[in-house]
Amino acid sequence: MSGDRTVTACLILIGNEILSGRTQDKNLSYLAGGLNEVGVQMREARVIPDIRKTIVDTVNECRAKFDYVFTTGGIGPTHDDITSECIAEAFGVGMYRDQEIVDLLQSYMARRGRSEMNEARLRMATFPEGAVLLRNEVSAAPGYKLGNVFVMAGVPRIMHAMFEEAKRYLQGGAVVRSRGIVVDLPEGTIAEPLGDLQARFPEIDIGSYPQMREEGFRVSVVARGTDPARLNQVISELMQSLADLGGHPSEEDLANAQSQSHPDEQP
Amino acid sequence: MSGDRTVTACLILIGNEILSGRTQDKNLSYLAGGLNEVGVQMREARVIPDIRKTIVDTVNECRAKFDYVFTTGGIGPTHDDITSECIAEAFGVGMYRDQEIVDLLQSYMARRGRSEMNEARLRMATFPEGAVLLRNEVSAAPGYKLGNVFVMAGVPRIMHAMFEEAKRYLQGGAVVRSRGIVVDLPEGTIAEPLGDLQARFPEIDIGSYPQMREEGFRVSVVARGTDPARLNQVISELMQSLADLGGHPSEEDLANAQSQSHPDEQP
Repeated sequence: MSGDRTVTACLILIGNEILSGRTQDKNLSYLAGGLNEVGVQMREARVIPDIRKTIVDTVNECRAKFDYVFTTGGIGPTHDDITSECIAEAFGVGMYRDQEIVDLLQSYMARRGRSEMNEARLRMATFPEGAVLLRNEVSAAPGYKLGNVFVMAGVPRIMHAMFEEAKRYLQGGAVVRSRGIVVDLPEGTIAEPLGDLQARFPEIDIGSYPQMREEGFRVSVVARGTDPARLNQVISELMQSLADLGGHPSEEDLANAQSQSHPDEQP
Repeated sequence: MSGDRTVTACLILIGNEILSGRTQDKNLSYLAGGLNEVGVQMREARVIPDIRKTIVDTVNECRAKFDYVFTTGGIGPTHDDITSECIAEAFGVGMYRDQEIVDLLQSYMARRGRSEMNEARLRMATFPEGAVLLRNEVSAAPGYKLGNVFVMAGVPRIMHAMFEEAKRYLQGGAVVRSRGIVVDLPEGTIAEPLGDLQARFPEIDIGSYPQMREEGFRVSVVARGTDPARLNQVISELMQSLADLGGHPSEEDLANAQSQSHPDEQP
């Protein structure tokens, strides 16, 4: 951990199935949370199709722009799994077959009474030169790290295993902490004091998320920042000014509010 | 509808709450499906933070690259709602206050016994010059269209209403149709015939999505294309070759398989 430095990441989700609406992505919110725990802040995510030039260009643009890049999807055995060729092209390196991984896949299949090794399966043992492998126990086929790019599977259970391995190579900076308040006031009423508070605490990121519930409108205000003392100060000032406006603010349990769907809104 | 032309779109999801993992996005899959119905294909999606330069640059890059751009998020009354200023900056235009929308918001609030109009709420009646408004009955505050960019709310129920309005301005091209097959074979076994089929039908997009279920491994193969006759040909050849491999293929009901989570995978 290198303390106060802001360490950034970009996630590239590769796959036509997300862009066609067939598959609902779950990887973004998982990685956003997992990265923050080790002091890395996800600053952008892109969903791109299985098109070679798009993948190569996006990887090259993002690896120059962010400290770390994570990709998910496109590392299986079929013709639409083209991520590894694209990563090799992006880095201008060749590809090699890893005999240890060939053996691993072979014994994984043997344990499951599967058919023989073939060219398609060998693709999962073929990596860009210089790749540092990220083993996973779930499917035996590894992801890998090349430079600051981490290449992982799209299937969540397999991606999670690869991400655990990836963490060993991450040099995190400051960890962002969050605190939240819910209040029974409409967003338009609290906007002005909220804006004033944001102006006075520029290093704290204050977000306002309106909801409409059975029992009436309410707003969830989330403050995020790396300095716990400043964060606490924002929260206590906020509690006071929301009460002054006639609201009944209470602290929100953010751990349980994680990854909720977008609630309904009131102006 | 202009027939065979491929019409493309990019979705820009604006909001720190998605990148922090707090909110699980649902808008991407909804818009992907809704756009395809009117002959527009979503080719990329980007999730970006509430940072002015990032929003301006991303909007300008994407509106030059795609036929249509849709943004969600950042058009409410609070300090973190900066999308409209950024759209105006991206297009190099000023902003104006729309008195009709001021009146609309006023009567919307009056009906709900809300407090007075204020500067924060007036922000929701302030638009880039040249904006064509997209009314919505849910929250009264409209989205808008400027050039080929459609600016919508992040809250799904409000976004859906704005998208219905947006459809009036879309000139779609060919509609992509999907057919799917599930088969009880591992992905590595079907990869070769699948790749051959893809090579022979380059205009059909064939995707392979492996799953692990209680009852064993299986693969879902989805073929997508604009020519129904060619699509049917791919499906019937696929049924035959999967049966030749010893599998038991059956057609998948894609309507009910929509927006499922990523299933588990086998190599």
